[in-house]
Parts: sequence; C-alpha cells; structure tokens
Amino acid sequence: MQAEIICIGDELLIGQTINTNAAWLGEHLNTLGIRVHRTLSIPDLREEIILALDEALSRSKVVVVTGGLGPTKDDITKHTLCNYFETTLKINDEALERITGFFKDRGLPMLEVNRLQAALPEACQVIQNYRGTACGMWFEKNGAVIISMPGVPYEMKSMMEEQVFPMIRKHFQTPEILHRTILTIGAGESFLAEIIRDWEDSLAKHEIKLAYLPSPGMVKLRMSVYGTIPGIREVLKQKEEELRLLINTYIYGVEKSTLEEIVGALLRDKKLTVSAAESCTGGNIAHLMTSIAGSSDYFIGSIVSYHEKIKVSELGVSPETISQFGVVSRQVVEAMVIGCKDKFNTDFAVATTGIAGPTGGSEENPVGTVWIGIAGPNGVKSEKFRFGKNREFNINMASEAGLNMLRKEILAMNG
Amino acid sequence: MQAEIICIGDELLIGQTINTNAAWLGEHLNTLGIRVHRTLSIPDLREEIILALDEALSRSKVVVVTGGLGPTKDDITKHTLCNYFETTLKINDEALERITGFFKDRGLPMLEVNRLQAALPEACQVIQNYRGTACGMWFEKNGAVIISMPGVPYEMKSMMEEQVFPMIRKHFQTPEILHRTILTIGAGESFLAEIIRDWEDSLAKHEIKLAYLPSPGMVKLRMSVYGTIPGIREVLKQKEEELRLLINTYIYGVEKSTLEEIVGALLRDKKLTVSAAESCTGGNIAHLMTSIAGSSDYFIGSIVSYHEKIKVSELGVSPETISQFGVVSRQVVEAMVIGCKDKFNTDFAVATTGIAGPTGGSEENPVGTVWIGIAGPNGVKSEKFRFGKNREFNINMASEAGLNMLRKEILAMNG
Repeated sequence: MQAEIICIGDELLIGQTINTNAAWLGEHLNTLGIRVHRTLSIPDLREEIILALDEALSRSKVVVVTGGLGPTKDDITKHTLCNYFETTLKINDEALERITGFFKDRGLPMLEVNRLQAALPEACQVIQNYRGTACGMWFEKNGAVIISMPGVPYEMKSMMEEQVFPMIRKHFQTPEILHRTILTIGAGESFLAEIIRDWEDSLAKHEIKLAYLPSPGMVKLRMSVYGTIPGIREVLKQKEEELRLLINTYIYGVEKSTLEEIVGALLRDKKLTVSAAESCTGGNIAHLMTSIAGSSDYFIGSIVSYHEKIKVSELGVSPETISQFGVVSRQVVEAMVIGCKDKFNTDFAVATTGIAGPTGGSEENPVGTVWIGIAGPNGVKSEKFRFGKNREFNINMASEAGLNMLRKEILAMNG
Repeated sequence: MQAEIICIGDELLIGQTINTNAAWLGEHLNTLGIRVHRTLSIPDLREEIILALDEALSRSKVVVVTGGLGPTKDDITKHTLCNYFETTLKINDEALERITGFFKDRGLPMLEVNRLQAALPEACQVIQNYRGTACGMWFEKNGAVIISMPGVPYEMKSMMEEQVFPMIRKHFQTPEILHRTILTIGAGESFLAEIIRDWEDSLAKHEIKLAYLPSPGMVKLRMSVYGTIPGIREVLKQKEEELRLLINTYIYGVEKSTLEEIVGALLRDKKLTVSAAESCTGGNIAHLMTSIAGSSDYFIGSIVSYHEKIKVSELGVSPETISQFGVVSRQVVEAMVIGCKDKFNTDFAVATTGIAGPTGGSEENPVGTVWIGIAGPNGVKSEKFRFGKNREFNINMASEAGLNMLRKEILAMNG
C-alpha cells in the first residue's frame, strides 16, 4: 500500500518552517504497513493543490494533506477541497460546540472567522480537533482516501493517532513493513560499510533493504523488509546478532532511542544519580537529560559555569590550575567534574570545557577543542576531542560525546 | 524565476530524518529572487529520480537535487544522473586529491569506495566539497540548470553558499523578491488577524502577499512582494510602521532573529549581565542563551536546580518557604531568582519552577503550570503561566516566556 503526503504552505517553500510533519507522518504510516512514496510541499495556491491531488490520486490509495486550514485569508485548503470533491460547506454542530468551548475555556473572544472554522464540506467525515480550532477531513474517492489535517504539528499528531490511524487500519488491510534500526556513534559511514560489507551482501537473499542514515558523529543502520515473508522476524533478529559481532563497540542503542534516553534508563535501572558542570555545552547536557520524562529521579542538577570565575566559586577549580594549564585542559575539566560530583553528592558527574567557536581558538586549542570529564565510582576519566568550526555542531557533538562517555562509564561499573 | 527541490532518500520518507535542507534551500534561493515552487522527497530508486527530474525540468529553470551521493550501495543519485545526462564517469583529479587529503588529515584509511567518489560525470561541472567526500554536480540542459548536492546539511550549505549561489547569480538574472517578517509572541493567529484586518486588505493594491506563520506561542507575519515594483521598498517600510501601531505590544523582533538573539543583543548593547536558575526548563534557557556566539560577554552562568534540595543548598530558598507554599509557587520562584542574582552577581536573573509533565500535576497546579521570575534593577517580578500537557511543549514555552519577560524587563529599564 502506497501513500503520498502533500504539505501546503508558502512557509515551507520559503524556508521559514521546517517540515517536521512529513517525517512524522512517514514514520507512523510505515508502522501501519503503508509506504510513503512521495512527499510534496506546494504553495497555498488553488491550482497547485488540485494538480497535486490529481497526481497523487493517480498513484496512491492514501493521500494525507497538511496545512492551510487556519482561519486566515491565506488558508485556502478547505475551500479548494470543497470544490475538488464537488460539495458544499455546512456548519458541523460538534465542531461548533467544540470551538465555542475552546474560546470559552481560555476566556478569549470568539470571532466570526473562528465560527466559520466549523463550516465543513458535507461530503467529508469530520475529524475533530481537540487541541485547536481547525477540523480535519476524511474524503473517499475511487477507492482512495484523502485526509486533510491542520499544519500545527501537535494538533495534527493527536488527530492522526487518536482518530485517523484507527480509521485507516479499519479501512485498509495491508502488509506490514518491519524495520530494525541499529544506532552507532564514533565511526563514519564508509568505515562501517567496509566492515559490514559481506554482512550487507547477505541481506539481499532475504529481501532485506539496508539504509545508512548518517548524522554528525552518528550513523543509523536501518534494515527494512515486508513482514509477510515467512520466518522473517527470526531472520531479522539473527542479522542483528551478526551485525553486533562486527561493530558492537560503536553500537549505543536501537530504534529511535536517544543517548539521553539510554543513559537515563541505565541510571534509573541501577538507581544512580548524576549531575553536570557545563562550560562550552552551556546547559545542553542538562537540557537533553531533563527532556526525558521522569529524569528528576536521577538528574539532580547542574552548574553552567560559563564565566571562568564560576568554575572557581561554584566548582572549586583553583585559579592556579586555570592559569597554569588554561581553562580548556585536562586539569580543569577534572577539577570541574570532581567539584560537581562533590557539590551535588551524585554517583556520577559529567563536565565539559572547550571552545565552541566561532572565535576564541588558539594554535594549541583551535575552535572545536573540547575536554570532557566523567567522575564516578571508578574514579575520574577525561578525554580531549576536536570537533569542527561550527558552534552549534560543536555544542551538539560535545553534548553527545559527554553522554556517550557517561554511558560507557555506567556500563563499566559491572565490568 | 522558478525552482524545484528534489530530496532523495528513503530516510526522509520513512521519517527517520527531518528534511531541514529543503527549508534552507527555499530560504536562500528566495533571496536570489528564485521562488521555490515545489519540494519533493522521493526514495532512492532510479525510476523515481528520473520521473522527478522530467517533471521538474518541464516546469522549472533551476532544479536542486539533494542526497544519495554517499559512498554506500543505497546511494544511486550519481549513477542515475550519469545515465540521465548520457555521460560517463571519469576520475576528477582535484576531487581525488581533496578526498585523499581528507582521509590523510584525519589519519583514517582511505577505502576504494571513497576513491570512487572522485569518479564524476564528464558532462557536469564539479562542485568541490571541502567538508566531506561527496562532490556536487552542476548540469545544464535546455536552458535549465540541475544541481546535485550531498544530503549532509553542513556540507550542502557551504557548497551552495561558497560555489553554487555565485554560479546561479552569474547564470541567471532574475527579479528579486522582497520579504519582511514581523515576529510576535503572546497573541493567537485569528486574534491578530482580526486586529489587522483592514491593514491586511490594504496590502493587495501594492501586490504584497501576507502569510501567517504560527508556531507554539508565536506568530510570524511575513509580507512578500516583487522587488521590481517601483517604490515598493518604501511601501514595505510604511506598511511595517502601520502594523507596529496596531500590534506593537506583541512584536518582539523582525526577520529570523530569535528571542535569545534579541535578548543577547540588548544585554550586550547595555553592557549588562544575566544568570539563570532553572528547574522545569532544565537548562534550556542557559542552552538557548549560550547558543549565541559571543554570549560569554553577558551570560555568566546558571544553576539547574532540578532536585528540590538544590534550590535550598545552591539558591538559598528556605525549606519553610517550600513546605508552606509548595515548590511551584510565587514565593519559591522569587526566592530562586533573588538567590541566583546574588550568587552570580549579575544585573539580571531569570528563574523557572513548574511542572513540565507528563506526570506530577495536582488539582491546584496541573501539568503545564510554571512560575517564572525575573530579578533586575527594577526589583523582582514573577508571573504564573499555564501551558499544556506535553513536556517538550512546556519546556519550550516556559523558556520562551522567560526570555520574553527578561526582554521586557531590560527594555523597561529605560522607561
């Protein structure tokens, strides 16, 4: 079963909004056994919307349209769909009640443009929006389903999960696609490819497709295969085991888990606590760790010691150490991480000091140089990294590297 | 002048990678006066690539293709383009030298698959990649230009900026498109639309198009118009002034600036310093502020007081205040922000305490309740917010609200 996604909105084409909806829809339709074949972004123009619908319906049984359902004048999707399906608008009572309640609950005045959002095409099945005012629409034509959703991601996602996916499941019965993704850190794409070449060749006879998904510092390896092939689940497991024998040292997790989730789960399982002392990462390690629900069970707190004097006053780094070795040095990061662990009285601490850039580098410590330290039951470990010239890249890479060092040290406790 | 973007990669369709390249290309092509009309994502399949090229070339003079240029087996873009333009591969000496140097510099072994990345279509002009191993390609056909770029964003962006955009500027001479974006916070899309209705109507006679670009808590208003219309720059300025008279209280900036950039620039201009004490935002305010280059001039440090005891030990909140009023209260956030300002000895401090969720709410303080406090030369101010049920949303909204309160307090210094 094949689907297409049509995202409507000038903001996507002019680049003021990054299209996160397409990725989310692609991922979730896939788990229903529906393969997204094309994702298209087009402007808020009637003729473009109609052309895109014609094209998509000539190929696909499921077409998801997002965007252009707001109350303002540049939002023309609803009227265009109304014309396309040769139907007329009619006030939907449930939608009107919901929209009225939406404004009442928030103590906001309800405007005529909002009331008109309850006017919906008679030919569609209305998908209620419990988080906003723009309803979704489900149309059927020549055996295909066309679903129109608001562009606001959290509205669209809840409506799809709570209403549309169950409707799709009921409407179609399609072969499942299985995916298994192995997450690696610290090895490049072509380096991995060389190591796993024979293994990769062996996938073909099971009709398993392999994709390399590189991001800075990391490569995800994703196997995909139709779930209808007999015994394929066991084959996938076996292939994963074979892969682990080849590249285990680079594997930090599977599927969509993040380093912060994996580190968080390890800390929780072992009933351990952690704190952070961040200089060049500027709070990003704390932010990543606390982005995980329930992180208050193991994440105690952190010091962002952005100014040098805070390293002295809050983390107990001696001014002599700083003047002798420089603020970006093994000695300083180790003093920081020890001071942090003591101050927060945690099982582990992680510390960073480096030059995020774009300026501030020296010949000895160019932009991108970062020292990372971990203190834990096994003592203190520190490592020097050289990332790149881009500030955002360096902050992200240093945060990931810190979390990965922490992960390894937690695992080493048992070893 | 019209362009289309074709993004190649299963990872985009299955949703494991969010397509940030399309937005970046759309934005930057626009500044060259080239309007992106369609952005298409397709799988790594020969026939799909060819179909997409045929379609795009039937409509557009500029086609940018990204992705599928890696050294691994699933990357087929180069070979497909080679067939499409009826040419053959030939080793490009400069590319080979560069790739060899790339591996040598990093002390990594160069593999045959890497060497083959220097084999490029004879019919193209090679775009060298100074940050990776996959070269870009520039083809010309029937007056149109087809540019193939690697999918790794920072490689693609540098190659476009340093090489391709100048080539495009030289090759075409196109009417410029002007944009002006006004950034608002704290008012909904339809509420704004109602206030500015007459103003919005007045744009049409100048051929100015208005777009509403909502994101959680914020709405961007973007005016777009062809730069070739006589006197249009003055009209745009005048329209902006008219808009400011209508909604000035909600405007926090213009163009693509972020709250953290605006706050940072204010602090720098006024030679002021700031610190943070973060509970529910978990380091995100510090992370946002330190994401700005040069933020060490004004951002001194922060305490992430995730565990209750850290609010006491590091920020001097009294245990009695916590037990009497609860950890999510005006009294606690004000004690936190005063403690923070004192500890870091800064001109301003910002503090947050709240329930990010998804659990931990009570009847009095449901999930999404956040107290934010600012301490500064005008004393202490605090405000209670109710955001939503989603953890990520709450962390982001609370961080933005904290930065916006800080912005207002800095501006109020002069008032």
